[in-house]
Amino acid sequence: MIRFECDYATGAHPKVLQALADTNFEACPGYGVDAHCQNAARLIRLACQAPEADVHFLVGGTQANLTVIAAALRPHQGVVSTQMGHIADHETGAVEATGHKVLSVPSQDGKLTAGQLEALCQAHYADPSVEHKVQPGMVYLSHPTELGGVYTLSELEAICQTAHRHHMMVFVDGARLAYGLAASDITLADLGRLCDVFYLGGTKAGALFGEAVVILNPALKRDFRYLIKQRGGMLAKGRLLGVQFEALMEDGLYQRIGREAVDKALRLQKAFLDKGWPLLVPSPTNQQFPILPDGALARLSEKYTTCWWSKPDEGHTAVRFCVSWSTTEQDIDALTGDIRAL
Amino acid sequence: MIRFECDYATGAHPKVLQALADTNFEACPGYGVDAHCQNAARLIRLACQAPEADVHFLVGGTQANLTVIAAALRPHQGVVSTQMGHIADHETGAVEATGHKVLSVPSQDGKLTAGQLEALCQAHYADPSVEHKVQPGMVYLSHPTELGGVYTLSELEAICQTAHRHHMMVFVDGARLAYGLAASDITLADLGRLCDVFYLGGTKAGALFGEAVVILNPALKRDFRYLIKQRGGMLAKGRLLGVQFEALMEDGLYQRIGREAVDKALRLQKAFLDKGWPLLVPSPTNQQFPILPDGALARLSEKYTTCWWSKPDEGHTAVRFCVSWSTTEQDIDALTGDIRAL
Amino acid sequence: MIRFECDYATGAHPKVLQALADTNFEACPGYGVDAHCQNAARLIRLACQAPEADVHFLVGGTQANLTVIAAALRPHQGVVSTQMGHIADHETGAVEATGHKVLSVPSQDGKLTAGQLEALCQAHYADPSVEHKVQPGMVYLSHPTELGGVYTLSELEAICQTAHRHHMMVFVDGARLAYGLAASDITLADLGRLCDVFYLGGTKAGALFGEAVVILNPALKRDFRYLIKQRGGMLAKGRLLGVQFEALMEDGLYQRIGREAVDKALRLQKAFLDKGWPLLVPSPTNQQFPILPDGALARLSEKYTTCWWSKPDEGHTAVRFCVSWSTTEQDIDALTGDIRAL
Amino acid sequence: MIRFECDYATGAHPKVLQALADTNFEACPGYGVDAHCQNAARLIRLACQAPEADVHFLVGGTQANLTVIAAALRPHQGVVSTQMGHIADHETGAVEATGHKVLSVPSQDGKLTAGQLEALCQAHYADPSVEHKVQPGMVYLSHPTELGGVYTLSELEAICQTAHRHHMMVFVDGARLAYGLAASDITLADLGRLCDVFYLGGTKAGALFGEAVVILNPALKRDFRYLIKQRGGMLAKGRLLGVQFEALMEDGLYQRIGREAVDKALRLQKAFLDKGWPLLVPSPTNQQFPILPDGALARLSEKYTTCWWSKPDEGHTAVRFCVSWSTTEQDIDALTGDIRAL
Repeated sequence: MIRFECDYATGAHPKVLQALADTNFEACPGYGVDAHCQNAARLIRLACQAPEADVHFLVGGTQANLTVIAAALRPHQGVVSTQMGHIADHETGAVEATGHKVLSVPSQDGKLTAGQLEALCQAHYADPSVEHKVQPGMVYLSHPTELGGVYTLSELEAICQTAHRHHMMVFVDGARLAYGLAASDITLADLGRLCDVFYLGGTKAGALFGEAVVILNPALKRDFRYLIKQRGGMLAKGRLLGVQFEALMEDGLYQRIGREAVDKALRLQKAFLDKGWPLLVPSPTNQQFPILPDGALARLSEKYTTCWWSKPDEGHTAVRFCVSWSTTEQDIDALTGDIRAL
Repeated sequence: MIRFECDYATGAHPKVLQALADTNFEACPGYGVDAHCQNAARLIRLACQAPEADVHFLVGGTQANLTVIAAALRPHQGVVSTQMGHIADHETGAVEATGHKVLSVPSQDGKLTAGQLEALCQAHYADPSVEHKVQPGMVYLSHPTELGGVYTLSELEAICQTAHRHHMMVFVDGARLAYGLAASDITLADLGRLCDVFYLGGTKAGALFGEAVVILNPALKRDFRYLIKQRGGMLAKGRLLGVQFEALMEDGLYQRIGREAVDKALRLQKAFLDKGWPLLVPSPTNQQFPILPDGALARLSEKYTTCWWSKPDEGHTAVRFCVSWSTTEQDIDALTGDIRAL
Repeated sequence: MIRFECDYATGAHPKVLQALADTNFEACPGYGVDAHCQNAARLIRLACQAPEADVHFLVGGTQANLTVIAAALRPHQGVVSTQMGHIADHETGAVEATGHKVLSVPSQDGKLTAGQLEALCQAHYADPSVEHKVQPGMVYLSHPTELGGVYTLSELEAICQTAHRHHMMVFVDGARLAYGLAASDITLADLGRLCDVFYLGGTKAGALFGEAVVILNPALKRDFRYLIKQRGGMLAKGRLLGVQFEALMEDGLYQRIGREAVDKALRLQKAFLDKGWPLLVPSPTNQQFPILPDGALARLSEKYTTCWWSKPDEGHTAVRFCVSWSTTEQDIDALTGDIRAL
Repeated sequence: MIRFECDYATGAHPKVLQALADTNFEACPGYGVDAHCQNAARLIRLACQAPEADVHFLVGGTQANLTVIAAALRPHQGVVSTQMGHIADHETGAVEATGHKVLSVPSQDGKLTAGQLEALCQAHYADPSVEHKVQPGMVYLSHPTELGGVYTLSELEAICQTAHRHHMMVFVDGARLAYGLAASDITLADLGRLCDVFYLGGTKAGALFGEAVVILNPALKRDFRYLIKQRGGMLAKGRLLGVQFEALMEDGLYQRIGREAVDKALRLQKAFLDKGWPLLVPSPTNQQFPILPDGALARLSEKYTTCWWSKPDEGHTAVRFCVSWSTTEQDIDALTGDIRAL
């Protein structure tokens, strides 16, 4: 079977794995204060053009999300997300378990708009019983979104302006940011300039695991390491995270992983469209959501794994194909060839 | 510098690292339902002689502690621990952040006694305003303790009987269980027979990271994976945990790592005692806590790192020396030689 | 001004106030274990034909909701409610502050259907990544709803069957139950037979304050007083609640208060309809939601207070008129007269 | 039986009850924004000489404690209290249920010292693994303490200076403040000048229920009403609290209730000492803790209720005698006479 169902099915990019092996016998201080973490943080600050940023390394995305949100909000505040946002729908109520409501807003394509945010805030503050409602305190965006879409720079700017006007922080979940950088006009420097906090995902972009949380807002920097420890995210051998992000950031590997996967994904997209299979949503990134005739899906499933997504009608199924650093040109050749041959 | 300050300063035992490299390009399902996790769980059930046990793999100790405790307790219940227990003193209130009080009891040596537990429960249930107090719902033991001590089988049996008589679960934190198995008459099978839940620590015994939580009590088994996900502990590339524990469990490596480190630690202990340096507490495991003249400590610190522990008087300091899988015979020779030569 | 904006604008029904004065100098044990609480609980069990029920008295509705829900759910579970449910929309995230998600479902009229519930449960348990989603653990119904509607007995039976089939508890918020009893075929005995837990609201039905929580499900009875204390709901002078509910339950006062208010509310409803003003939703209870021409509303607002609800179009406004035990026939005569005269 | 076991056994002071009756038919806005609450808040600000203070009325002490503490702390912070503090020992973990640890310090007499606080803070910030410990964020004092003791002004000043130097808020639980004002050199103006937040207890000083929370620290003022609602403390008929505190504050009734009860309690104290019965702790307030021969206690218990406290030795028992607004001179005459006659 050739696996396209997700972008975390294999281990680490060989350069990352090699770095772990090379440093295996180094004795380092624990808990993320070692030289590798410091160097990786430096490289990330450079890439983000954010010399004042604090950078912390956490093991996974849910952990990063819940730690950041718990650190940012006062008890009566909630976090605004689309109803498809990972925190709203796919983390078993991890945010609620920290005491905070996810204020979900509808979305067709997984993207939040500045207009929606403005309307939500105006409705909140105009409510005569405002104190009986959860106060919006933070905005959560996934970039790319759960459906592979990306924000444009002007969209992000509008959201940040709206959020900040209403005293809300902006948090960008970059679990797949490597792919977003290859497919959007938003740069790491833009994120460093506009957001209060965001993260560069490693798990889905070549690392064994790890997310690099970048904090810009000074109010959120204070005591953040206490929060990491409290929420179970402080890895004893913290240098494992530093070593991996050093490898990813040192020579543009992170961006290259993103770009190459996007190129391969767009070859798949073209094959779907050439075959006349529509896309559930347009995606310029490493996740593609074609709507296939069920017969074709059955045939492809003999050789390829995908992720079931939805059933738009009798006879058709939308599935997710994911490309990752470990997807080879041969994998793409095989799949596109088989599609054409169907 | 030769590092003795902790047992998580280096990476993974070579066999563990090799297993990760060997499986790096395998494409596995995510989130811990892959064949490596299943096989590692099987090996652990075998070793514990607990064929009905559920085994889950989490990344770290704090995460394991907070997830197990949150899963086990109803809101009005607390967890009993010595005041030195890791959950009581060294996890930034992680348990409280899940809503539960740690009911601390005093201890000189880090061990809880069945008598203390009985007295605490009797006092609780005899209190005329019992509902104004936190109900003891679980007992937390570290084996070995934070000071390197171990429980005997009869001590553990007494604690479990007392706890169960008062409708409390028993949870054994085995972050350093590998060393406890080498130094106590408690076997894995005993833990599987007596406890409600415990874990085998990997982080401090040869893995890059990872703790294997073994659940015996059926009430705690139900829906435990939801809890893991909610608390941020469900690793996307869950197989990394399975692969590591396969390597540790397959040929007794886990037990061997423990035994070899304990042997080395006892060589250190003998050197301290021969020199006339008393021990803060007697420890039969990989952590040793000698009380050194400050001058001797200063001299040793030029070449060896230790962990500061306490200052019993002017002129003397208690420090921790830790031995791990990566401590070599040469390291021990050097240190014991330097001690003799002082 | 004659106040129709809510049903908690005045103090207590004279009989309730008299009972408080009559017992003022009695010295009673604190915290709800006095003879008045016991007698009130007995009267409620009788009225509900639920001799095994546990009855607890809490001060207010939000407190009752959050205490019951926190007591009932395990950490990974959420409570299903319509999006208009008080817990979903009007309690500042009180449920989330206990760690649980409110699983909101859409509703036009404020009522949940058994079909919606079935669909939600089926979708949950069919999801291949079920453990990444919040498990539905309880159903929350308001009866009457926030829009004044009531469930029928057959609707309630269908919801309870569906919920129990999926291992969920059913919780009925009866903040305005006095009015629901006068307008629905559901009796107190039905609630006692079908639900896991519900409450009879006192605050909005003649008491100064107080809600009587009736627990039928044995699993929820255990240790419930600990939970009341922990969540701040254990009134020191608990007998104040017992005394009030004794007064309300002793001679059918509670039901009479409900019936008389509903009769007055229906006189208002007729006046609205006779005038050609449609209702936002049909309501057979003490809350009425007419849609008024803005000019008429302006005129009425010189003499009567109402609660703004929504703006269906330019030129019209929906407002809430509430009738309570302290609304007099003269108040109704005045308002209906003024409506006719407009 | 004449009841001395607590100071909340009877209803309200007649003036308070009369005020409730007088205002019963007034229709007021709900949730604490009515004219009575505003007037009561004005009177309290005057009495505290704190024109900028925010005043909020909550129903009970546990509710006030948990709401203030949850509002004040960030997630990784805890609240320092003596081990006898009400929040540490008698509220079923209400503070932990909001996610925060109570950092208990030992105390013989129920009082915290500035020296203890300084030592705790120095130990925290000197710890090399500071982020693995709960950060002290607030100090909780009971004045009077749970054992009836009071702080002196200079003690309070020292604690506040120490706390503020370490960026901690000071919170004074004044559940029995009426009695403290009569027995200490600390005035309401001192509390208004020194603390970040405190409350005047009504429940134990003449009200049916109610605590007036006075917030001085601007950071804590922001959005506090959201927190009250979220934690279940926003009484629908909020004016009940305003009306009661108006009655208590209008003509010095609150202070008078405190003074008269203290005078009566000191008559009891003298009777105990004259009889040769020592006091468990010296108390200048309305709670007295004599140590009685068991035979004497048995005789007195035929006629008087007390609260069991501890058993210092075989043959003697320490019990609590409480005086309240409803304790009469005749009650005191009877008890002191019976003591003499024993």
